[in-house]
Amino acid sequence: MKYCGKSIPSRSKYDKIQPRKCHLPENHKGKCEEFPFLKDLTKSHKRVSDKIKRDSTMTTGAAWKSDDAGPNRILRWVMLLNDEELLKYGIDISALKPQVVSKIKEKGADYDSCIQVAIKLTWLAYQMPGAPDCSQAIKEYLIEHFGELKNETVCSICLDNLPFDLFHSAQRGKANIETCHLNPRIHNSENVGFAHRECNIAQGNKTLEEFYEWIAGILDRANKS
Amino acid sequence: MKYCGKSIPSRSKYDKIQPRKCHLPENHKGKCEEFPFLKDLTKSHKRVSDKIKRDSTMTTGAAWKSDDAGPNRILRWVMLLNDEELLKYGIDISALKPQVVSKIKEKGADYDSCIQVAIKLTWLAYQMPGAPDCSQAIKEYLIEHFGELKNETVCSICLDNLPFDLFHSAQRGKANIETCHLNPRIHNSENVGFAHRECNIAQGNKTLEEFYEWIAGILDRANKS
Repeated sequence: MKYCGKSIPSRSKYDKIQPRKCHLPENHKGKCEEFPFLKDLTKSHKRVSDKIKRDSTMTTGAAWKSDDAGPNRILRWVMLLNDEELLKYGIDISALKPQVVSKIKEKGADYDSCIQVAIKLTWLAYQMPGAPDCSQAIKEYLIEHFGELKNETVCSICLDNLPFDLFHSAQRGKANIETCHLNPRIHNSENVGFAHRECNIAQGNKTLEEFYEWIAGILDRANKS
Repeated sequence: MKYCGKSIPSRSKYDKIQPRKCHLPENHKGKCEEFPFLKDLTKSHKRVSDKIKRDSTMTTGAAWKSDDAGPNRILRWVMLLNDEELLKYGIDISALKPQVVSKIKEKGADYDSCIQVAIKLTWLAYQMPGAPDCSQAIKEYLIEHFGELKNETVCSICLDNLPFDLFHSAQRGKANIETCHLNPRIHNSENVGFAHRECNIAQGNKTLEEFYEWIAGILDRANKS
């Protein structure tokens, strides 16, 4: 799809690094929108819509700030800047431990990839059992990006059911559905999906392939013992 | 083994609930000792010895205090007290969320079970590849409790190698070997073992049997897809 692509001004100090852009089709009518595909979900399920925006564009991060945990959630494309530029934004990479640095640098991703991730996650969310309907315009938008909306979205890791209402059954602030990465080090639309929280935790920093090999080895040994 | 069983006075405010006892054989010579089986490890590998004492006798707990995380590490037998008695020790159960309460109450265990857990963990630690030798007296003590020291201790969960030096390769305060429970809700010597941190995290609050069933289901679906 060719997007409108016009800049959408914001008050964010990060706008100089990367302006937000309109992702309606070019020559669209009406107001520019960065996330037009989330318009319906924003009305009916704001928390899900916010989660998709957040997980696609922000690094994960501790809910508190500490030298150990690294900086709090930050825009993924900001994490592509070099250390000197980051310091201008108050992020002192040199104060962090090496393993924290490599972990947060891995989360960096360019703006366009993040938007594609958001569209993919929206496409997946609408195919979960129990998902709400969406308008014809959004349906066509999503189909043009990632194909027909006829599959049942399952957990990307355990491949079992992933009902839409698991988005709401959060306990102590921890959603039971998490955005996951088949390879935890790549943030793009081919590599993301939704997963049960417990599956995402179990996979850890392994790739999905490594995870399957690992659990196959466990079962081999368990069956022999 | 029949223990000496004499009380070992301490300054802990919890002594009234449960005095610490001597676990040398009855009619032993010399000073009473609560953890005689850890004497050698305390000299050669104090962190391992401290970990065994801590994991066997204390609840796990957040490293910080918050209403949400529940009280910090506390003696497991203290958690067997009722809410009214706990309040006398400054632990206000009514201030905690229900899911936190059930989680910490599950960690309660009587003193004697905790000591048996400590002996079992010591027995397992000495059978890890690369473990130090121990004195003949401790060897006999451990054998009398849990049998010959001729096995190779493996991770209780993945059943793969668990070298003794993984105790030392802690990253950011997180040991790579964790004490685990085959059934996470029972703290006794038959139910405890050592595991890789990643295995313990993957198992979560499932029993080991549930965990194996769960990952078998994942592989079934992955192989079909």
